[in-house]
Amino acid sequence: MDTDPLIALDAMGGDHAPGEIVAGAVRAARDLGLRVALVGVPETVTAELAKHGDRPDTITVVPASEVIGMDEQPAQAARHKKDSSIVVGLRMVKQGEAAAFVSAGNTGAIMAAAIMYLGRIKGIERPTLVALMPLSGKLTVLLDVGANADCKPGYLLQFAQMASAYMERVWKVDRPKVALLNIGEEEMKGSSLAQEAYALLANSNLNFIGNVEGRDVPTDIADVIVTDGFTGNVVVKTMEGMADFIMNQLRAAIKSRPWYAAAGLALMPAFNQMRKKLDYREYGAGPLLGVNGLVFVGHGPSDARAIFSALRVAREAALSGMLEALREQTPAGTR
Amino acid sequence: MDTDPLIALDAMGGDHAPGEIVAGAVRAARDLGLRVALVGVPETVTAELAKHGDRPDTITVVPASEVIGMDEQPAQAARHKKDSSIVVGLRMVKQGEAAAFVSAGNTGAIMAAAIMYLGRIKGIERPTLVALMPLSGKLTVLLDVGANADCKPGYLLQFAQMASAYMERVWKVDRPKVALLNIGEEEMKGSSLAQEAYALLANSNLNFIGNVEGRDVPTDIADVIVTDGFTGNVVVKTMEGMADFIMNQLRAAIKSRPWYAAAGLALMPAFNQMRKKLDYREYGAGPLLGVNGLVFVGHGPSDARAIFSALRVAREAALSGMLEALREQTPAGTR
Repeated sequence: MDTDPLIALDAMGGDHAPGEIVAGAVRAARDLGLRVALVGVPETVTAELAKHGDRPDTITVVPASEVIGMDEQPAQAARHKKDSSIVVGLRMVKQGEAAAFVSAGNTGAIMAAAIMYLGRIKGIERPTLVALMPLSGKLTVLLDVGANADCKPGYLLQFAQMASAYMERVWKVDRPKVALLNIGEEEMKGSSLAQEAYALLANSNLNFIGNVEGRDVPTDIADVIVTDGFTGNVVVKTMEGMADFIMNQLRAAIKSRPWYAAAGLALMPAFNQMRKKLDYREYGAGPLLGVNGLVFVGHGPSDARAIFSALRVAREAALSGMLEALREQTPAGTR
Repeated sequence: MDTDPLIALDAMGGDHAPGEIVAGAVRAARDLGLRVALVGVPETVTAELAKHGDRPDTITVVPASEVIGMDEQPAQAARHKKDSSIVVGLRMVKQGEAAAFVSAGNTGAIMAAAIMYLGRIKGIERPTLVALMPLSGKLTVLLDVGANADCKPGYLLQFAQMASAYMERVWKVDRPKVALLNIGEEEMKGSSLAQEAYALLANSNLNFIGNVEGRDVPTDIADVIVTDGFTGNVVVKTMEGMADFIMNQLRAAIKSRPWYAAAGLALMPAFNQMRKKLDYREYGAGPLLGVNGLVFVGHGPSDARAIFSALRVAREAALSGMLEALREQTPAGTR
């Protein structure tokens, strides 16, 4: 009996596609026996697969003649490139051929195509994109990070409910702690959106711990931090910018004197140990929650290890009944 | 003739008040001949002054019997503590006795009191708090960072105009580059607020360079980055949180093996060189723009060096005619 879920993987999406994508799939198939459908231009995918010796039998290739570029206009590409790896992969999920779709491709196009081809879960007003933040050593998720630039208070409640179900089902967190990103700790702080969302969260059945501020984001204070898609996107990118800035400054400072270089070299393992904390790759890809199917969106620069993790997490999500939980939760969850 | 402007300084405001505040004032008086009115509880201020030997003749003490605590409810404190150092200092500006007011005290209370006692510049819809970001080695300002959680597009245009005038007058930047914080580079990206603000900025006489994203904030891409007070506040605090996180991780990593410690020690000067870039103290305090008087708000943890810089910058602002420029600019500047 073949009950292991099949994961459709966009072989053409990502800064290092198809090489790293196919390598991640091969590793997941070999190490975990994971069933992967590599969706992409057949000759290209087959040529990549050939580099890894005997093809594992749990890997299949599903042809898609078109590729959506990383910088293409999302909605247009999703609508017109009907034989792209993104659309073909999502259609497999829609038709029940695959249990989940994973892509490190054009985020906007994945979101647009997922909404177009899978639709929303009944009762969900807006799908939401989740960022995985493993900084503190345990996983915190931040959402929305860009699917919805303009939000209503009710959206934020639904985001929190979906992310809470995701943390419970996929990461086995009991009663996930949910916080609202705000500009002060007190209840009456913030924009009218934040104040109204606070009231909804406080009256929900979620484990709501109140407001957190920007400086709490890289800590383990909460399991779920909810905000609108504008603020969330700016926060994630600011964090990347700060990490880059500090690492570059450090590198420049070490290079500025010859005798620092030796000390810097001796400290390399310590630096690497720290960099690991900044590494999302153990956690793979963030879920797109609220569409009627399991979709995971990886970072553009995803390498084989990130893809391996994303596939593992996608399988876990499929086996966990997360989607069913989300479907049952709404709209009753709004009570 | 005594043309040097008098700066009123809140001796009681800040995490290290009155010690560091008074020390900063003494240094500014001695090194720059700066005229400072130390506003605060007379015995306390006089006792602190006594620690520095002979009092410079450009320092005076202005009595204020009350103190607004760092955690007090801002609007209430501003309204009721009429003999607090914040209110007394602002009243000196209002009455033309002082050219500017500097405080590292309760930010909310300073803003509330400034609006209450100084009022707004005619034509300005909302005063705005500016954060100084010297990360890239040159000064960039980000605003609004918390005065206005809910903004209209027109506010953002006025924020940009005021910050542009500030950079021109006080920091002598020719045609300051103004950017809009957004979640994508293209014109049509972002929330409806961002899209409408984009249109206003693009049609203004400012040197508008378009959208920037979160990752651009710690770079020198712009002189002025404008956003709403909710996003701006979250960004500034996220940057602080990330800097703390990375420095703590680094410290922990270096401590994790005895042989890293020696290398870490050798690298201390390099680390310190980097930390300097994160140091706002050279720039002192951010202006509260749009109120009818010069007000500068320092970080709570300001030390003597930060206060020294804040006083220097406040004098520069007074001499530069910045306030007059702001008064003339609006509302005609909206053209």
